[in-house]
Amino acid sequence: MQVTSEQLLDDTLVERRFLLADVPGLLWMPVAPATPVPLVLMGHPGGLDGMYPRLVARARSAASDGFATATLELPGSGGRPPLPEVEAARADLRAALAAGEPVAGEVVDRLVLPLVEAAVPEWRALLDALLALPEVGGPVGFSGGVVAIGVRMARVEPRLVAAGLFAGSFVPRSILEEARAVTIPLHLLLQWDDRGNDRQMALDLFDAFGSAEKTLCANLGGHTGVPAHAGDEAARFFRRHLAPAPS
Amino acid sequence: MQVTSEQLLDDTLVERRFLLADVPGLLWMPVAPATPVPLVLMGHPGGLDGMYPRLVARARSAASDGFATATLELPGSGGRPPLPEVEAARADLRAALAAGEPVAGEVVDRLVLPLVEAAVPEWRALLDALLALPEVGGPVGFSGGVVAIGVRMARVEPRLVAAGLFAGSFVPRSILEEARAVTIPLHLLLQWDDRGNDRQMALDLFDAFGSAEKTLCANLGGHTGVPAHAGDEAARFFRRHLAPAPS
Repeated sequence: MQVTSEQLLDDTLVERRFLLADVPGLLWMPVAPATPVPLVLMGHPGGLDGMYPRLVARARSAASDGFATATLELPGSGGRPPLPEVEAARADLRAALAAGEPVAGEVVDRLVLPLVEAAVPEWRALLDALLALPEVGGPVGFSGGVVAIGVRMARVEPRLVAAGLFAGSFVPRSILEEARAVTIPLHLLLQWDDRGNDRQMALDLFDAFGSAEKTLCANLGGHTGVPAHAGDEAARFFRRHLAPAPS
Repeated sequence: MQVTSEQLLDDTLVERRFLLADVPGLLWMPVAPATPVPLVLMGHPGGLDGMYPRLVARARSAASDGFATATLELPGSGGRPPLPEVEAARADLRAALAAGEPVAGEVVDRLVLPLVEAAVPEWRALLDALLALPEVGGPVGFSGGVVAIGVRMARVEPRLVAAGLFAGSFVPRSILEEARAVTIPLHLLLQWDDRGNDRQMALDLFDAFGSAEKTLCANLGGHTGVPAHAGDEAARFFRRHLAPAPS
Protein backbone atom coordinates (compact mmCIF):
# COMPACT_ATOMS: atom_id res chain seq x y z
CA MET A 1 0.00 0.00 0.00
CA GLN A 2 1.57 3.23 -1.18
CA VAL A 3 0.29 6.32 0.63
CA THR A 4 0.11 9.22 -1.81
CA SER A 5 -1.17 11.96 0.52
CA GLU A 6 -2.14 12.53 4.12
CA GLN A 7 -4.35 15.39 5.21
CA LEU A 8 -5.97 16.53 8.46
CA LEU A 9 -9.61 17.25 7.45
CA ASP A 10 -10.47 18.80 10.80
CA ASP A 11 -9.45 18.17 14.40
CA THR A 12 -11.15 14.74 14.42
CA LEU A 13 -10.32 13.10 11.09
CA VAL A 14 -7.20 12.24 9.08
CA GLU A 15 -7.53 11.24 5.43
CA ARG A 16 -4.90 9.16 3.63
CA ARG A 17 -5.09 8.55 -0.08
CA PHE A 18 -3.26 5.48 -1.29
CA LEU A 19 -2.68 3.08 -4.15
CA LEU A 20 -3.02 -0.65 -3.51
CA ALA A 21 -1.15 -2.08 -6.50
CA ASP A 22 -2.73 0.31 -9.03
CA VAL A 23 -6.12 0.66 -7.30
CA PRO A 24 -6.82 4.03 -5.66
CA GLY A 25 -8.31 4.05 -2.19
CA LEU A 26 -8.90 6.14 0.90
CA LEU A 27 -8.35 5.56 4.59
CA TRP A 28 -9.84 7.77 7.28
CA MET A 29 -8.56 7.59 10.86
CA PRO A 30 -9.70 9.26 14.06
CA VAL A 31 -7.05 11.74 15.15
CA ALA A 32 -4.60 10.33 17.70
CA PRO A 33 -6.48 7.20 18.77
CA ALA A 34 -5.35 5.76 22.11
CA THR A 35 -5.22 2.15 20.86
CA PRO A 36 -5.41 0.25 17.55
CA VAL A 37 -8.91 0.95 16.28
CA PRO A 38 -11.71 -1.16 14.77
CA LEU A 39 -12.15 -0.86 11.01
CA VAL A 40 -15.15 -0.49 8.72
CA LEU A 41 -14.72 -1.25 5.01
CA MET A 42 -17.07 1.08 3.16
CA GLY A 43 -18.62 -0.26 -0.03
CA HIS A 44 -20.09 2.05 -2.66
CA PRO A 45 -21.46 1.76 -6.21
CA GLY A 46 -18.23 2.88 -7.91
CA GLY A 47 -16.74 6.27 -8.77
CA LEU A 48 -14.83 7.49 -5.70
CA ASP A 49 -14.79 11.12 -6.81
CA GLY A 50 -18.58 11.35 -7.10
CA MET A 51 -19.13 9.33 -3.92
CA TYR A 52 -16.54 11.28 -1.93
CA PRO A 53 -18.92 13.64 -0.05
CA ARG A 54 -21.11 10.76 1.15
CA LEU A 55 -18.13 8.55 1.99
CA VAL A 56 -16.41 11.23 4.04
CA ALA A 57 -19.67 11.86 5.95
CA ARG A 58 -19.86 8.15 6.78
CA ALA A 59 -16.16 8.20 7.73
CA ARG A 60 -16.71 11.15 10.05
CA SER A 61 -19.59 9.40 11.79
CA ALA A 62 -17.55 6.21 12.20
CA ALA A 63 -14.55 8.17 13.52
CA SER A 64 -16.79 9.70 16.18
CA ASP A 65 -17.25 6.09 17.38
CA GLY A 66 -13.49 5.56 17.28
CA PHE A 67 -13.45 3.53 14.04
CA ALA A 68 -11.16 3.75 11.03
CA THR A 69 -12.86 3.48 7.63
CA ALA A 70 -11.44 2.61 4.24
CA THR A 71 -12.59 2.14 0.69
CA LEU A 72 -11.27 1.18 -2.75
CA GLU A 73 -12.27 2.23 -6.24
CA LEU A 74 -14.35 -0.53 -7.85
CA PRO A 75 -13.10 -2.46 -10.90
CA GLY A 76 -14.22 -0.63 -14.05
CA SER A 77 -15.08 2.62 -12.20
CA GLY A 78 -13.40 5.98 -11.78
CA GLY A 79 -10.16 6.07 -13.73
CA ARG A 80 -9.80 2.25 -13.74
CA PRO A 81 -9.84 0.30 -17.02
CA PRO A 82 -13.44 -0.16 -18.19
CA LEU A 83 -15.11 -3.58 -18.10
CA PRO A 84 -16.91 -3.68 -21.48
CA GLU A 85 -19.03 -6.75 -20.68
CA VAL A 86 -20.25 -5.21 -17.42
CA GLU A 87 -21.04 -1.97 -19.27
CA ALA A 88 -23.02 -3.93 -21.86
CA ALA A 89 -25.00 -5.63 -19.08
CA ARG A 90 -25.62 -2.23 -17.43
CA ALA A 91 -27.02 -0.92 -20.72
CA ASP A 92 -29.32 -3.97 -20.93
CA LEU A 93 -30.48 -3.39 -17.35
CA ARG A 94 -31.24 0.27 -18.01
CA ALA A 95 -33.10 -0.59 -21.19
CA ALA A 96 -35.27 -3.10 -19.32
CA LEU A 97 -35.99 -0.60 -16.52
CA ALA A 98 -36.78 2.17 -18.99
CA ALA A 99 -39.18 -0.15 -20.85
CA GLY A 100 -40.80 -1.19 -17.58
CA GLU A 101 -39.84 -4.80 -18.29
CA PRO A 102 -38.66 -7.33 -15.71
CA VAL A 103 -34.87 -7.56 -15.47
CA ALA A 104 -33.66 -10.96 -16.66
CA GLY A 105 -31.56 -12.96 -14.22
CA GLU A 106 -28.84 -13.39 -16.82
CA VAL A 107 -28.51 -9.60 -17.14
CA VAL A 108 -28.10 -9.29 -13.36
CA ASP A 109 -25.52 -12.08 -13.43
CA ARG A 110 -23.54 -10.41 -16.23
CA LEU A 111 -23.66 -7.06 -14.43
CA VAL A 112 -22.87 -8.10 -10.87
CA LEU A 113 -20.93 -11.37 -10.82
CA PRO A 114 -17.80 -10.10 -12.68
CA LEU A 115 -17.70 -7.15 -10.28
CA VAL A 116 -17.89 -9.47 -7.28
CA GLU A 117 -15.20 -11.75 -8.71
CA ALA A 118 -12.85 -8.84 -9.42
CA ALA A 119 -13.52 -6.69 -6.34
CA VAL A 120 -13.51 -9.19 -3.49
CA PRO A 121 -9.83 -10.22 -3.83
CA GLU A 122 -8.93 -6.53 -3.91
CA TRP A 123 -10.91 -5.79 -0.74
CA ARG A 124 -9.28 -8.76 0.98
CA ALA A 125 -5.83 -7.50 -0.04
CA LEU A 126 -6.83 -4.10 1.36
CA LEU A 127 -7.71 -5.79 4.63
CA ASP A 128 -4.27 -7.46 4.71
CA ALA A 129 -2.61 -4.09 4.18
CA LEU A 130 -4.70 -2.18 6.71
CA LEU A 131 -4.44 -4.73 9.49
CA ALA A 132 -0.66 -4.58 9.08
CA LEU A 133 -0.77 -0.94 10.18
CA PRO A 134 -0.05 -0.55 13.90
CA GLU A 135 -2.93 1.92 14.33
CA VAL A 136 -5.59 -0.44 12.88
CA GLY A 137 -6.49 -3.43 15.03
CA GLY A 138 -9.99 -4.66 14.17
CA PRO A 139 -12.60 -6.03 14.66
CA VAL A 140 -13.67 -5.39 11.06
CA GLY A 141 -17.08 -4.65 9.58
CA PHE A 142 -18.31 -4.19 6.01
CA SER A 143 -20.74 -1.36 5.36
CA GLY A 144 -22.88 -0.38 2.37
CA GLY A 145 -23.00 -1.81 -1.14
CA VAL A 146 -22.60 -3.22 -3.72
CA VAL A 147 -24.72 -5.64 -1.66
CA ALA A 148 -23.52 -8.69 -3.62
CA ILE A 149 -19.89 -7.75 -2.85
CA GLY A 150 -20.85 -7.49 0.83
CA VAL A 151 -22.48 -10.92 0.77
CA ARG A 152 -19.43 -12.54 -0.85
CA MET A 153 -17.10 -10.75 1.59
CA ALA A 154 -19.21 -11.89 4.54
CA ARG A 155 -19.12 -15.46 3.25
CA VAL A 156 -15.41 -15.77 2.47
CA GLU A 157 -13.59 -13.36 4.78
CA PRO A 158 -13.27 -14.72 8.33
CA ARG A 159 -11.93 -11.41 9.65
CA LEU A 160 -15.34 -9.73 9.09
CA VAL A 161 -17.45 -9.82 12.26
CA ALA A 162 -20.48 -7.78 11.15
CA ALA A 163 -22.02 -6.55 7.91
CA GLY A 164 -24.34 -3.56 7.53
CA LEU A 165 -25.43 -3.83 3.90
CA PHE A 166 -27.47 -1.56 1.65
CA ALA A 167 -29.91 -3.55 -0.50
CA GLY A 168 -29.77 -0.96 -3.24
CA SER A 169 -28.78 -3.04 -6.26
CA PHE A 170 -29.84 -6.23 -8.00
CA VAL A 171 -28.78 -9.55 -6.51
CA PRO A 172 -27.81 -12.57 -8.62
CA ARG A 173 -29.59 -15.80 -7.67
CA SER A 174 -26.28 -17.45 -6.85
CA ILE A 175 -25.50 -14.68 -4.35
CA LEU A 176 -28.85 -15.37 -2.62
CA GLU A 177 -27.61 -18.93 -2.19
CA GLU A 178 -24.28 -17.68 -0.83
CA ALA A 179 -26.16 -15.62 1.77
CA ARG A 180 -27.37 -18.84 3.40
CA ALA A 181 -23.74 -19.53 4.42
CA VAL A 182 -23.33 -16.09 6.04
CA THR A 183 -23.55 -16.31 9.82
CA ILE A 184 -22.16 -12.98 11.10
CA PRO A 185 -24.57 -10.35 12.52
CA LEU A 186 -26.35 -8.61 9.70
CA HIS A 187 -28.12 -5.25 9.31
CA LEU A 188 -29.85 -4.80 5.96
CA LEU A 189 -31.02 -1.37 4.86
CA LEU A 190 -33.74 -1.25 2.18
CA GLN A 191 -35.36 1.75 0.52
CA TRP A 192 -38.94 0.62 -0.10
CA ASP A 193 -39.38 2.58 -3.35
CA ASP A 194 -35.90 2.15 -4.84
CA ARG A 195 -36.76 2.03 -8.55
CA GLY A 196 -33.41 0.62 -9.67
CA ASN A 197 -33.85 -2.36 -7.40
CA ASP A 198 -36.11 -5.36 -6.82
CA ARG A 199 -37.90 -5.18 -3.48
CA GLN A 200 -38.92 -8.83 -3.38
CA MET A 201 -35.35 -9.89 -4.11
CA ALA A 202 -34.13 -7.75 -1.21
CA LEU A 203 -36.70 -9.42 1.08
CA ASP A 204 -35.60 -12.84 -0.24
CA LEU A 205 -31.99 -11.87 0.48
CA PHE A 206 -32.85 -10.90 4.06
CA ASP A 207 -34.67 -14.19 4.47
CA ALA A 208 -31.72 -16.13 3.05
CA PHE A 209 -29.00 -14.95 5.44
CA GLY A 210 -27.99 -17.68 7.85
CA SER A 211 -27.14 -15.18 10.60
CA ALA A 212 -28.66 -15.72 14.03
CA GLU A 213 -28.83 -11.95 14.44
CA LYS A 214 -30.27 -10.08 11.50
CA THR A 215 -32.33 -6.90 11.17
CA LEU A 216 -34.11 -5.50 8.14
CA CYS A 217 -34.56 -1.74 8.28
CA ALA A 218 -36.86 -0.64 5.45
CA ASN A 219 -37.90 2.96 4.92
CA LEU A 220 -40.19 4.79 2.58
CA GLY A 221 -38.35 6.53 -0.21
CA GLY A 222 -36.01 6.05 -3.14
CA HIS A 223 -32.40 4.93 -3.48
CA THR A 224 -30.80 8.10 -2.12
CA GLY A 225 -33.54 8.90 0.43
CA VAL A 226 -32.22 6.94 3.42
CA PRO A 227 -33.51 8.92 6.43
CA ALA A 228 -31.01 10.20 8.99
CA HIS A 229 -32.48 7.98 11.72
CA ALA A 230 -31.77 4.88 9.59
CA GLY A 231 -28.15 5.98 9.17
CA ASP A 232 -27.94 6.44 12.93
CA GLU A 233 -29.35 2.95 13.44
CA ALA A 234 -26.74 1.42 11.13
CA ALA A 235 -24.05 3.25 13.10
CA ARG A 236 -25.43 1.80 16.33
CA PHE A 237 -25.28 -1.68 14.74
CA PHE A 238 -21.54 -1.29 14.18
CA ARG A 239 -21.09 0.21 17.64
CA ARG A 240 -22.69 -2.91 19.16
CA HIS A 241 -20.47 -5.27 17.19
CA LEU A 242 -17.15 -3.44 16.75
CA ALA A 243 -16.75 -1.25 19.80
CA PRO A 244 -15.13 -2.73 22.88
CA ALA A 245 -17.70 -3.03 25.67
CA PRO A 246 -17.33 -0.21 28.20
CA SER A 247 -15.56 -1.54 31.27
CA MET B 1 -62.07 7.72 35.32
CA GLN B 2 -62.04 6.38 38.85
CA VAL B 3 -58.56 5.96 40.32
CA THR B 4 -58.53 2.88 42.54
CA SER B 5 -54.90 2.97 43.70
CA GLU B 6 -51.76 5.03 43.36
CA GLN B 7 -48.32 3.64 44.09
CA LEU B 8 -44.74 4.89 43.78
CA LEU B 9 -42.93 1.97 42.04
CA ASP B 10 -39.51 3.51 42.54
CA ASP B 11 -38.12 7.03 42.54
CA THR B 12 -38.89 7.48 38.81
CA LEU B 13 -42.34 5.97 38.24
CA VAL B 14 -45.84 6.35 39.67
CA GLU B 15 -48.52 3.76 38.86
CA ARG B 16 -52.22 4.51 39.04
CA ARG B 17 -54.80 1.78 38.62
CA PHE B 18 -58.20 2.97 37.50
CA LEU B 19 -61.60 1.99 36.16
CA LEU B 20 -62.92 3.72 33.06
CA ALA B 21 -66.62 2.95 33.28
CA ASP B 22 -66.09 -0.73 34.25
CA VAL B 23 -62.88 -1.28 32.25
CA PRO B 24 -59.69 -1.67 34.30
CA GLY B 25 -56.63 0.24 33.21
CA LEU B 26 -53.24 1.50 34.28
CA LEU B 27 -51.50 4.87 34.02
CA TRP B 28 -47.79 5.32 34.64
CA MET B 29 -46.35 8.79 35.16
CA PRO B 30 -42.80 10.03 35.56
CA VAL B 31 -42.33 11.28 39.11
CA ALA B 32 -42.82 15.04 39.46
CA PRO B 33 -42.68 16.10 35.81
CA ALA B 34 -41.95 19.78 35.27
CA THR B 35 -44.69 20.27 32.65
CA PRO B 36 -47.67 18.37 31.23
CA VAL B 37 -46.13 15.32 29.59
CA PRO B 38 -46.56 13.52 26.26
CA LEU B 39 -48.56 10.29 26.37
CA VAL B 40 -48.11 6.85 24.84
CA LEU B 41 -51.11 4.52 24.70
CA MET B 42 -49.75 0.99 25.07
CA GLY B 43 -51.58 -1.74 23.21
CA HIS B 44 -51.22 -5.41 24.17
CA PRO B 45 -52.84 -8.74 23.24
CA GLY B 46 -55.20 -8.82 26.22
CA GLY B 47 -54.86 -9.99 29.82
CA LEU B 48 -53.36 -7.13 31.83
CA ASP B 49 -52.20 -9.34 34.70
CA GLY B 50 -50.12 -11.58 32.45
CA MET B 51 -48.83 -8.65 30.41
CA TYR B 52 -48.02 -6.54 33.49
CA PRO B 53 -44.24 -7.21 33.68
CA ARG B 54 -43.71 -6.31 30.02
CA LEU B 55 -46.03 -3.30 30.19
CA VAL B 56 -44.32 -1.86 33.25
CA ALA B 57 -40.91 -2.31 31.56
CA ARG B 58 -42.19 -0.36 28.55
CA ALA B 59 -43.68 2.27 30.90
CA ARG B 60 -40.37 2.64 32.73
CA SER B 61 -38.51 3.15 29.45
CA ALA B 62 -41.07 5.74 28.30
CA ALA B 63 -40.93 7.54 31.65
CA SER B 64 -37.16 7.87 31.25
CA ASP B 65 -37.99 9.91 28.14
CA GLY B 66 -40.49 11.97 30.14
CA PHE B 67 -43.61 10.27 28.77
CA ALA B 68 -46.73 9.05 30.52
CA THR B 69 -48.05 5.66 29.40
CA ALA B 70 -51.50 4.12 29.79
CA THR B 71 -53.33 0.97 28.88
CA LEU B 72 -56.78 -0.64 29.15
CA GLU B 73 -57.88 -4.23 29.46
CA LEU B 74 -59.14 -5.48 26.10
CA PRO B 75 -62.79 -6.44 25.57
CA GLY B 76 -63.21 -10.13 26.39
CA SER B 77 -59.87 -10.39 28.24
CA GLY B 78 -58.80 -10.49 31.88
CA GLY B 79 -61.86 -10.34 34.10
CA ARG B 80 -64.05 -8.73 31.43
CA PRO B 81 -67.13 -10.53 30.05
CA PRO B 82 -66.06 -13.10 27.45
CA LEU B 83 -66.82 -12.59 23.76
CA PRO B 84 -67.96 -16.07 22.68
CA GLU B 85 -67.84 -15.37 18.94
CA VAL B 86 -64.28 -14.07 19.18
CA GLU B 87 -63.32 -17.12 21.24
CA ALA B 88 -64.85 -19.41 18.61
CA ALA B 89 -62.82 -17.65 15.91
CA ARG B 90 -59.66 -17.97 18.03
CA ALA B 91 -60.29 -21.72 18.29
CA ASP B 92 -60.68 -21.90 14.50
CA LEU B 93 -57.42 -19.95 14.02
CA ARG B 94 -55.53 -22.25 16.38
CA ALA B 95 -56.93 -25.33 14.68
CA ALA B 96 -55.79 -24.04 11.28
CA LEU B 97 -52.30 -23.20 12.59
CA ALA B 98 -51.99 -26.58 14.36
CA ALA B 99 -52.99 -28.35 11.14
CA GLY B 100 -50.52 -26.25 9.14
CA GLU B 101 -53.38 -24.95 7.02
CA PRO B 102 -53.73 -21.40 5.69
CA VAL B 103 -55.86 -19.18 7.94
CA ALA B 104 -59.05 -18.17 6.16
CA GLY B 105 -59.74 -14.46 5.87
CA GLU B 106 -63.19 -14.88 7.38
CA VAL B 107 -61.62 -16.42 10.51
CA VAL B 108 -59.30 -13.42 10.83
CA ASP B 109 -62.26 -11.09 10.34
CA ARG B 110 -64.34 -12.86 13.03
CA LEU B 111 -61.37 -12.82 15.43
CA VAL B 112 -60.11 -9.28 14.99
CA LEU B 113 -62.86 -6.98 13.72
CA PRO B 114 -65.18 -7.31 16.76
CA LEU B 115 -62.19 -6.53 18.98
CA VAL B 116 -61.37 -3.43 16.94
CA GLU B 117 -65.00 -2.28 16.98
CA ALA B 118 -65.29 -2.74 20.74
CA ALA B 119 -61.84 -1.54 21.82
CA VAL B 120 -61.31 1.62 19.78
CA PRO B 121 -64.17 3.64 21.36
CA GLU B 122 -62.83 2.64 24.78
CA TRP B 123 -59.29 3.78 23.93
CA ARG B 124 -60.66 7.05 22.61
CA ALA B 125 -62.64 7.56 25.83
CA LEU B 126 -59.43 6.83 27.73
CA LEU B 127 -57.72 9.53 25.73
CA ASP B 128 -60.48 12.01 26.64
CA ALA B 129 -60.04 11.17 30.32
CA LEU B 130 -56.24 11.31 30.32
CA LEU B 131 -55.93 14.55 28.40
CA ALA B 132 -58.28 16.12 30.96
CA LEU B 133 -55.63 15.53 33.62
CA PRO B 134 -53.47 18.61 34.21
CA GLU B 135 -50.26 16.52 34.25
CA VAL B 136 -50.89 14.94 30.81
CA GLY B 137 -50.55 17.26 27.84
CA GLY B 138 -49.75 15.29 24.70
CA PRO B 139 -48.65 14.84 21.94
CA VAL B 140 -49.99 11.28 21.92
CA GLY B 141 -48.59 8.11 20.38
CA PHE B 142 -49.94 4.55 20.12
CA SER B 143 -47.50 1.73 20.76
CA GLY B 144 -47.69 -2.04 20.28
CA GLY B 145 -50.59 -4.27 19.29
CA VAL B 146 -53.19 -5.50 18.58
CA VAL B 147 -51.92 -4.08 15.27
CA ALA B 148 -55.42 -3.81 13.78
CA ILE B 149 -56.53 -1.71 16.77
CA GLY B 150 -53.50 0.52 16.21
CA VAL B 151 -54.36 0.94 12.53
CA ARG B 152 -57.98 1.88 13.31
CA MET B 153 -56.83 4.28 16.05
CA ALA B 154 -54.33 5.90 13.68
CA ARG B 155 -57.05 6.30 11.06
CA VAL B 156 -59.84 7.74 13.23
CA GLU B 157 -58.15 9.52 16.14
CA PRO B 158 -56.77 12.93 15.14
CA ARG B 159 -54.99 13.38 18.47
CA LEU B 160 -52.53 10.57 17.60
CA VAL B 161 -49.34 11.96 16.04
CA ALA B 162 -47.27 8.76 15.74
CA ALA B 163 -47.81 5.01 15.83
CA GLY B 164 -45.19 2.39 16.67
CA LEU B 165 -47.01 -0.85 15.94
CA PHE B 166 -46.14 -4.50 16.50
CA ALA B 167 -47.11 -6.63 13.50
CA GLY B 168 -47.60 -9.66 15.71
CA SER B 169 -51.16 -10.69 14.88
CA PHE B 170 -53.31 -11.36 11.84
CA VAL B 171 -54.68 -8.40 9.90
CA PRO B 172 -58.13 -8.38 8.30
CA ARG B 173 -58.16 -7.34 4.63
CA SER B 174 -60.40 -4.37 5.44
CA ILE B 175 -57.82 -3.11 7.95
CA LEU B 176 -55.16 -3.23 5.21
CA GLU B 177 -57.42 -0.91 3.23
CA GLU B 178 -57.84 1.37 6.25
CA ALA B 179 -54.04 1.62 6.52
CA ARG B 180 -53.98 3.47 3.21
CA ALA B 181 -55.74 6.38 4.94
CA VAL B 182 -53.18 6.54 7.76
CA THR B 183 -50.74 9.41 7.29
CA ILE B 184 -49.01 9.83 10.66
CA PRO B 185 -45.38 8.70 11.07
CA LEU B 186 -45.25 4.95 11.41
CA HIS B 187 -42.77 2.47 12.89
CA LEU B 188 -43.68 -1.18 12.29
CA LEU B 189 -41.94 -3.92 14.22
CA LEU B 190 -42.03 -7.43 12.71
CA GLN B 191 -40.62 -10.69 14.04
CA TRP B 192 -39.53 -12.56 10.93
CA ASP B 193 -40.33 -16.04 12.31
CA ASP B 194 -43.51 -15.23 14.26
CA ARG B 195 -45.44 -18.49 13.80
CA GLY B 196 -48.81 -17.10 14.90
CA ASN B 197 -48.65 -14.42 12.23
CA ASP B 198 -48.53 -14.01 8.46
CA ARG B 199 -45.27 -12.42 7.30
CA GLN B 200 -46.52 -11.49 3.84
CA MET B 201 -49.57 -9.81 5.33
CA ALA B 202 -47.32 -7.77 7.63
CA LEU B 203 -45.25 -6.69 4.59
CA ASP B 204 -48.48 -5.84 2.73
CA LEU B 205 -49.58 -3.80 5.74
CA PHE B 206 -46.31 -1.86 5.77
CA ASP B 207 -46.70 -1.22 2.06
CA ALA B 208 -50.30 -0.06 2.52
CA PHE B 209 -49.73 2.72 5.06
CA GLY B 210 -50.17 6.14 3.49
CA SER B 211 -47.62 7.73 5.83
CA ALA B 212 -44.83 9.80 4.28
CA GLU B 213 -42.53 8.58 7.05
CA LYS B 214 -42.62 4.87 7.70
CA THR B 215 -40.02 2.35 8.84
CA LEU B 216 -40.21 -1.43 8.94
CA CYS B 217 -37.92 -2.98 11.53
CA ALA B 218 -37.85 -6.75 11.04
CA ASN B 219 -35.74 -9.06 13.16
CA LEU B 220 -34.98 -12.74 13.20
CA GLY B 221 -36.92 -14.58 15.85
CA GLY B 222 -40.36 -15.47 17.13
CA HIS B 223 -43.23 -13.45 18.57
CA THR B 224 -41.63 -12.78 21.95
CA GLY B 225 -38.05 -12.53 20.71
CA VAL B 226 -37.90 -8.80 19.91
CA PRO B 227 -34.22 -7.91 20.47
CA ALA B 228 -33.36 -5.15 22.93
CA HIS B 229 -31.93 -2.97 20.15
CA ALA B 230 -35.28 -3.05 18.33
CA GLY B 231 -37.06 -1.93 21.50
CA ASP B 232 -34.54 0.89 21.80
CA GLU B 233 -35.20 1.88 18.20
CA ALA B 234 -38.96 2.03 18.79
CA ALA B 235 -38.30 4.23 21.84
CA ARG B 236 -36.19 6.56 19.69
CA PHE B 237 -39.08 6.74 17.18
CA PHE B 238 -41.38 8.08 19.89
CA ARG B 239 -38.67 10.41 21.18
CA ARG B 240 -38.39 11.93 17.69
CA HIS B 241 -42.13 12.46 17.38
CA LEU B 242 -43.35 13.13 20.91
CA ALA B 243 -40.51 14.85 22.72
CA PRO B 244 -40.24 18.60 22.48
CA ALA B 245 -37.14 19.54 20.49
CA PRO B 246 -34.29 20.60 22.77
CA SER B 247 -34.03 24.36 22.75
